[in-house]
Amino acid sequence: MKKSKPTILIVNDDGVTAPGIKALMETMAEIGKVIVVAPDSPQSGMGHAITIGKPLRLDKIELYEGFETWSCSGTPVDCVKLAKYHVLKGIKPDLLVSGINHGLNNSINILYSGTMSAAVEGAIEDIPSIGFSLDDFTLQADFSHCLKYVKELALSVLEKGLPPATLLNVNFPNTQDIKGVKVCRQAIAKWAEEFDERMDPHRRPYYWMTGKFQMNDHGEDTDVWALEHHYVSVVPVQFDMTAHHAIPALTNWTF
Amino acid sequence: MKKSKPTILIVNDDGVTAPGIKALMETMAEIGKVIVVAPDSPQSGMGHAITIGKPLRLDKIELYEGFETWSCSGTPVDCVKLAKYHVLKGIKPDLLVSGINHGLNNSINILYSGTMSAAVEGAIEDIPSIGFSLDDFTLQADFSHCLKYVKELALSVLEKGLPPATLLNVNFPNTQDIKGVKVCRQAIAKWAEEFDERMDPHRRPYYWMTGKFQMNDHGEDTDVWALEHHYVSVVPVQFDMTAHHAIPALTNWTF
Repeated sequence: MKKSKPTILIVNDDGVTAPGIKALMETMAEIGKVIVVAPDSPQSGMGHAITIGKPLRLDKIELYEGFETWSCSGTPVDCVKLAKYHVLKGIKPDLLVSGINHGLNNSINILYSGTMSAAVEGAIEDIPSIGFSLDDFTLQADFSHCLKYVKELALSVLEKGLPPATLLNVNFPNTQDIKGVKVCRQAIAKWAEEFDERMDPHRRPYYWMTGKFQMNDHGEDTDVWALEHHYVSVVPVQFDMTAHHAIPALTNWTF
Repeated sequence: MKKSKPTILIVNDDGVTAPGIKALMETMAEIGKVIVVAPDSPQSGMGHAITIGKPLRLDKIELYEGFETWSCSGTPVDCVKLAKYHVLKGIKPDLLVSGINHGLNNSINILYSGTMSAAVEGAIEDIPSIGFSLDDFTLQADFSHCLKYVKELALSVLEKGLPPATLLNVNFPNTQDIKGVKVCRQAIAKWAEEFDERMDPHRRPYYWMTGKFQMNDHGEDTDVWALEHHYVSVVPVQFDMTAHHAIPALTNWTF
């Protein structure tokens, strides 16, 4: 007996009108029943933010023919929560996919990324979850070379599942010449910020955040290495923040 | 020769006027030179959000006599970045403390918490960092019973340092009768959301997020257990999201 089509929840952080989510929707429609719940405006860099001090709007919209699409005033994580508890009435989808993000979410960027935080929230809800991102932050980004990998990874996760409390962070290099897929760890890196100070017309200063990606991690098992060498990077992600290895040393402190 | 006073950077997510940050400032002033860079409005639940689509405001304000205090329009993580790269001109403080948060940040709450994300950002910048939170979310919260532990922990971290890429998440029970300090792991738990649907005067629905804390983790080594038993919980925190244990299994997948 053939199992019915899997239900696939799609979210992102670039907003419901972003080309990246449209590419993801079309690819997922080939393998399942798609429901989209995405922010009504760009939410890049929102990390794991949720909206608690004000109410949320959630509207079913007619944007993409043949797709059930909801637009939400909140963050990517809000979208996942509203999708699960309101749109899906508590019934778990078979898969959550987030993206495809316009811009990389490798290495430390996972902490700042709304796309990845939405996938983390999916995993917290025990939904098999994958975040996808492409190394091109422009609205004109071409996702076509990513789609066969997106489909293959989604099918693999649907078939095999994922280890408990684990999700996938998948990043694509911006090249048609992809060498393959590498399972890796996130590279250890950080952003060194600079602030571009400007003066407004009322002579009050304001600051634009800019930054340089700083990495001294020369391992060949990292996502940064994989992407630089034209591989798709797949990092299994967990969300237990406990530094278990540090517990014994701290326990010896006297308080 | 006596070492000069340590520089202590203070941030929070409840905003620069919150009683919790004032309590923390007064306690830290007993052991170091304090600089405060905090949001100009409440930023609870902002997680690791940063502001990238719009500029930031940062103003030196005369709010607390004797304290260098900066008010920032951004998120808690923005505050840390602006503090390090603009206020402190790239010079690392000896310690970063975040809080004292009005409300617990134990267990899974660390992911949603602006207070804790500010401390995580400090650790990313290689600054010894501690987040403090009290089990009372009201503006009338009484922090007095926390302060001797805040001071002792800050002094311990200044003296002994912390393991690399590790920070501390410290939560206080809301009782004068504290039994002691427990080093623990974060309890495995999640929030089950409900959305309170209401109708606005224009007959459009809006949704308030509410939630119930759901925990089936019965370990006696968790922060939830410690707090329920009137201990101060101290969880060492790391920020590598890689699920290292899952890499071998995934590597066997064929792509």
